[in-house]
Amino acid sequence: MADAPAPEQSKSAMKKAEKEAKKAAEKAAKAAKQATMPVIGGKKTDDIIGITVSKADNFSQWYQEVVLKAEMIEYYTEISGFFIMRPATMYIWNVIRKWFTAEIEAMGVDETNFPMFLSAKSLEKEKDHVEGFAPELAWVTKAGDKNLEVPVAVRPTSEAVMYPYYAKWIRSHRDLPFRLNQWNSVVRWEAKQTTPFLRAREFLWQEGHTAHLTEKLAGEEVLQILELYARIYEEILAVPVVRGKKTENEKFAGGYYTTTVEGYIPSNGRGIQGATSHCLGQNFSKMFDITVEDPAEKGKHINVWQNSWGLSTRVIGVMVMIHGDDKGLVLPPRIAKIQVIIVPVGITKSVTEEVKAAHGAQLQDIKKTLLSAGVRTEEDQREGYTPAWKFNDWELKVVSYARRDTGEKGTIPIAEVGTKVPELLETIQKDLYTKAKASFDEHRVVVKEWEKVITALDAKNVVLIPFCQEPKCEDKIKDLTTTKHDESPDASVPQAPSMGMKSLCIPFEQPEPMAEGTKCLNPECQATAHSYVMFGRSY
Amino acid sequence: MADAPAPEQSKSAMKKAEKEAKKAAEKAAKAAKQATMPVIGGKKTDDIIGITVSKADNFSQWYQEVVLKAEMIEYYTEISGFFIMRPATMYIWNVIRKWFTAEIEAMGVDETNFPMFLSAKSLEKEKDHVEGFAPELAWVTKAGDKNLEVPVAVRPTSEAVMYPYYAKWIRSHRDLPFRLNQWNSVVRWEAKQTTPFLRAREFLWQEGHTAHLTEKLAGEEVLQILELYARIYEEILAVPVVRGKKTENEKFAGGYYTTTVEGYIPSNGRGIQGATSHCLGQNFSKMFDITVEDPAEKGKHINVWQNSWGLSTRVIGVMVMIHGDDKGLVLPPRIAKIQVIIVPVGITKSVTEEVKAAHGAQLQDIKKTLLSAGVRTEEDQREGYTPAWKFNDWELKVVSYARRDTGEKGTIPIAEVGTKVPELLETIQKDLYTKAKASFDEHRVVVKEWEKVITALDAKNVVLIPFCQEPKCEDKIKDLTTTKHDESPDASVPQAPSMGMKSLCIPFEQPEPMAEGTKCLNPECQATAHSYVMFGRSY
Repeated sequence: MADAPAPEQSKSAMKKAEKEAKKAAEKAAKAAKQATMPVIGGKKTDDIIGITVSKADNFSQWYQEVVLKAEMIEYYTEISGFFIMRPATMYIWNVIRKWFTAEIEAMGVDETNFPMFLSAKSLEKEKDHVEGFAPELAWVTKAGDKNLEVPVAVRPTSEAVMYPYYAKWIRSHRDLPFRLNQWNSVVRWEAKQTTPFLRAREFLWQEGHTAHLTEKLAGEEVLQILELYARIYEEILAVPVVRGKKTENEKFAGGYYTTTVEGYIPSNGRGIQGATSHCLGQNFSKMFDITVEDPAEKGKHINVWQNSWGLSTRVIGVMVMIHGDDKGLVLPPRIAKIQVIIVPVGITKSVTEEVKAAHGAQLQDIKKTLLSAGVRTEEDQREGYTPAWKFNDWELKVVSYARRDTGEKGTIPIAEVGTKVPELLETIQKDLYTKAKASFDEHRVVVKEWEKVITALDAKNVVLIPFCQEPKCEDKIKDLTTTKHDESPDASVPQAPSMGMKSLCIPFEQPEPMAEGTKCLNPECQATAHSYVMFGRSY
Repeated sequence: MADAPAPEQSKSAMKKAEKEAKKAAEKAAKAAKQATMPVIGGKKTDDIIGITVSKADNFSQWYQEVVLKAEMIEYYTEISGFFIMRPATMYIWNVIRKWFTAEIEAMGVDETNFPMFLSAKSLEKEKDHVEGFAPELAWVTKAGDKNLEVPVAVRPTSEAVMYPYYAKWIRSHRDLPFRLNQWNSVVRWEAKQTTPFLRAREFLWQEGHTAHLTEKLAGEEVLQILELYARIYEEILAVPVVRGKKTENEKFAGGYYTTTVEGYIPSNGRGIQGATSHCLGQNFSKMFDITVEDPAEKGKHINVWQNSWGLSTRVIGVMVMIHGDDKGLVLPPRIAKIQVIIVPVGITKSVTEEVKAAHGAQLQDIKKTLLSAGVRTEEDQREGYTPAWKFNDWELKVVSYARRDTGEKGTIPIAEVGTKVPELLETIQKDLYTKAKASFDEHRVVVKEWEKVITALDAKNVVLIPFCQEPKCEDKIKDLTTTKHDESPDASVPQAPSMGMKSLCIPFEQPEPMAEGTKCLNPECQATAHSYVMFGRSY
C-alpha cells in the first residue's frame, strides 16, 4: 500500500496522512537500515539507527557504531581481535564473491581448498616470507590433551601451504598457466589494535595462486586481476581507487613486485590499501623447486613465474567508511540486499475489509512489478496489521520515495515504477561514486616543497611527491613526518599528529611528466626522483 | 569434429578410422576422467586412468586410487590426516552449496560467519558436548613467540561459538524463528585412521543453527532439513539413503535427538552416516540463557528450542564409493563439470585447410547446440592440431557416444544432439540411482533370529532387527558381534571380521508392523522391542 498524499489533498487529510506516514516510516526505518531507498511512501526519521556521534566529530566511534548498529558486525568478546560477520555483511561478501568467481572462471582459474595448517618446514623455505609472517602466526601445539610432536601454524596466507604441490602438479609447460583460487579465512595474530573489517586477527578473503612460463605472461595476469579488484571497488562498491605499484618497502614479503589499488578515507584523510596483486617472480619457484622444461630448449629446466593475489572483507569496511553518514549506513544499490522497502501509509481508522484488500492487492502489484524489473524489494509486514487498521479515501496514484544517500524526496507514478525505480537506483549508484571520486581527486595533491607536506596531510590530503624510491629514504620520510610524543611541542610550528606518512603506491597514472633532474623531495636525500609516489597517513 | 564411421564405410576406412579414433580417445580420456559421457565420436580405453586394483578385490586401495587419480584429492603430506581438495572436488561441492543455499534461503535462513576459535569457557557450558569433543580439539597456545594467556581451540563445530550471541540477539518471540547458517571448515583431530572425504582432521561443511519458540516448530524444521539432505543424496548424487532417527547412543553430544540419512556401501556392506539434523531441545538454551518472554503468558520466560544441522564433504566420498567402477570415477551427470567431451576423430593425412575449417565449424555448431541445451560440453583441444592434420572424406552425419556408467555405445543424428543428449544424461542420472537403490534395498534385510545376524553381515548386509533401544543393550550388541583378536578361532563356527555392528538409525519407514510382544533380538536382553532398528558394520 505504497502511497502518499497527492497534491490536491486537503490540509487536514495531509496532516492525518503525515502522522500515519511518520508512524509507518519509523517501523520501516528499522527494517530499512540496509536499504538504499528505505522508504517508499513514508518519511525518514533521523534518529532510528541511533548513531550517537557525528562522522565529523568522532570518526572512529562513528564507524564502530555504524557497523554494530547496522548489524554487520558483532564483537567476539570471547577472544579479542575477532569479529562475527552477520548476514548484512555476508550478503555483500557473497555479491562480490559471485561476481569475482565468474570473472576468474572465465580466465581459466579453478577453485581449490587447501588445509588451514602449515608446517614450519614449508614456511621456512622462503626467508623474507617467513620473517614477514612469523610474528603473527597462531601455533597449534596440542590436540586433545596430547602435545603435538611438531606444532603447526594456522595459515596467514597459503604460499607455503600450496607450493609444494605445485612442484608436483606442474610437470610440463603445457600445464601452464596453472591457476588456482580459494576462498577461506586466514589468521594473523595482530599486536596492533584491531578494527572491524580493516584489521582483524581472522579475516575472510580469496587467494589466487598462479604459475606462468614467462615474466611477461605473469605480469599480464597481475594487471588483469588488479583491474578486477579496481572494478569491485568502483563498479560494485562505488569507491574510487588509484592503481599503482608498491615501493620496495611496502611490497609482499618474498615477492618480486606488488601492485595495488589504494583508497582514500575523506573523514581523516588517510590512505588505505584496497587489494593487492603480486608478482612473486621466481623466488618461490626456486625454493619449492617448481620447474618445467623450456619449450624452446630441450633439456633446459626453467623455474616458473608465479603470482598471488588477494581481496579480503576489508573492502566492506572501506565502503562503509566512505558512504556512511550521520544517520548510519549508506549502501550502493548494487550491494543492497533490500533496494526498496514498501511501507503502507495513510491508513485511517475507518477502512472496510474490502478496501483494505484492494489496497493490499495494489501493493502486491507494485512489488511484483519491481521484483520483475530486478529490484530487490520488500514490504514492511512486521506486526501491526490488526483488523482495526483502516484505509483512508485517497486515490492511490503515485508512490513517494526518499533517497537514502541524499535524503531527496520525490514521487513516481505507479505505472512507471518498473522503469523509474531501476533508473533511480542506477543514479544513486553513480552519484555515490561521483561524490567519493570528487573527494579523492580533490585530496590527492601534488606537493613539490617539503615544507608543505605536513600542512597538506593535516588538511586530510594524500600527497604525490617526487621520490627516489630508495627503501632507506622511504623510512626516513616516515620518520621525518612523525611527531615523537616525547618531543616538547614548539608552539611556533604547526604540530603534526603522531602518525608519519608512508608510501601508498607509485600510481600507474602519473599526475604530470616529471621535469628532467627533479630531486627526491626528502630534504636529506640528494638522489634524483624516479616518479611521483603517493604518500599519506594510512591504515 | 565429432564424427564416426557411418555403417556404409569400407573396411579399410573403418580400420583407419578406428586407429585415429583410438588415438583421439586416448587424449580425450585424460581430459574426460570426470565426464559422464567422456567420448563422443571415439573409443574408451580401459587403462588410461590406471587404477591398479579392482573394486571387488581391494576396495580400500581402489578408493584411494580413484580419488587420487581422478584428481579430486591430494594427500597433504606435511601434516597427516589432512587432504587437499582439488578443482574436481570443489566443483561438486559448489553445485551442492548453491542448491542447498537456495533452498534454505527460501526457508528464511541467513548466512553468517563466526570466528574459527573457541574459548574453553564457552565450550564447557554443556557437559556432554564438551566431553564429546574435547579429545579431538586442536589448541592454539602460542601467537608468534608469545604464549597466549588463555589457549583457544579451533572449532570442531560451532554451538559453543555461536550461542552466547544468540542469547544477545534473540530478545523476543518475534525474533523467532532465528536461523543462521555458515559454510566453513572445522577441525577434529581424529586419532582413528583417516580416509579422504569420510574421515579427515579438517573438513568442509555447512552448519545451520536455529532457534524456535516450541518443540513442535523445531521438530518440523529438523525434518525439513533432513529431507533436503536426502534430496542432495538422491537427486543430485544419485545415492539412495534411509531416513531415520539415531538411538541415544549415537545421537549428537548434548542434543535432544538426532535425525539422519544413512547410506550403504555395497562393496563392503557397511552403513555410512550421510548427514545429520539435530534437535538440541532446550539443553543449550538453558546453559547459554537464551530465553524469550512467553507470548501466551506475560512475564514468564521460556528457553528457546534449538536445532543444528550439518552436511559435509563426506557426501562426495560416499558418491565415489557407490558409483565408481574398475575404470575409476563415475559421476552422475548433475554434478559432472564436463558432461560431454567432443573428440575429433577420423582425420587422415590428406585434409585440405578448407575441409579442416569446415569440419571445425561443424564441431563448433554441435558444441553450441549442446551448450544452449544446457549440456556442459568441452572439446579436446589439447595439442595436436598441427597443419599436418588431415581430414578424411567421410560424411559427418552422426555422432557416436559411449556412456561412462554402462559402457554402452550408440549414435545420435547430429540434428538431434540438442534434445537426445540431455535425455541421455537424465537417463544416466536415473540409472545410476536405480542401480544403487536396488543394491541398498537388496542388502537391507530384516533379521528375526540372533543366530543369523553375523551371517547376514558377512553377506554384506545391514540388518533391521527388533530392538529395545536401551543404550546398554546397544553396547552389548556391538560387543556380541565383535570378534576379539585374542580369541582362538573356532573352526566350526564362521568367524566374523573384527568389526562389531552399531546402530545406524531407527528408520522412519519401518519394514513391517512389529508383532505385539516382540522381544529385543539381543539374546541377553529380556526387554520388549520398540521398533526395528537398522544396524550394520559402519564407517
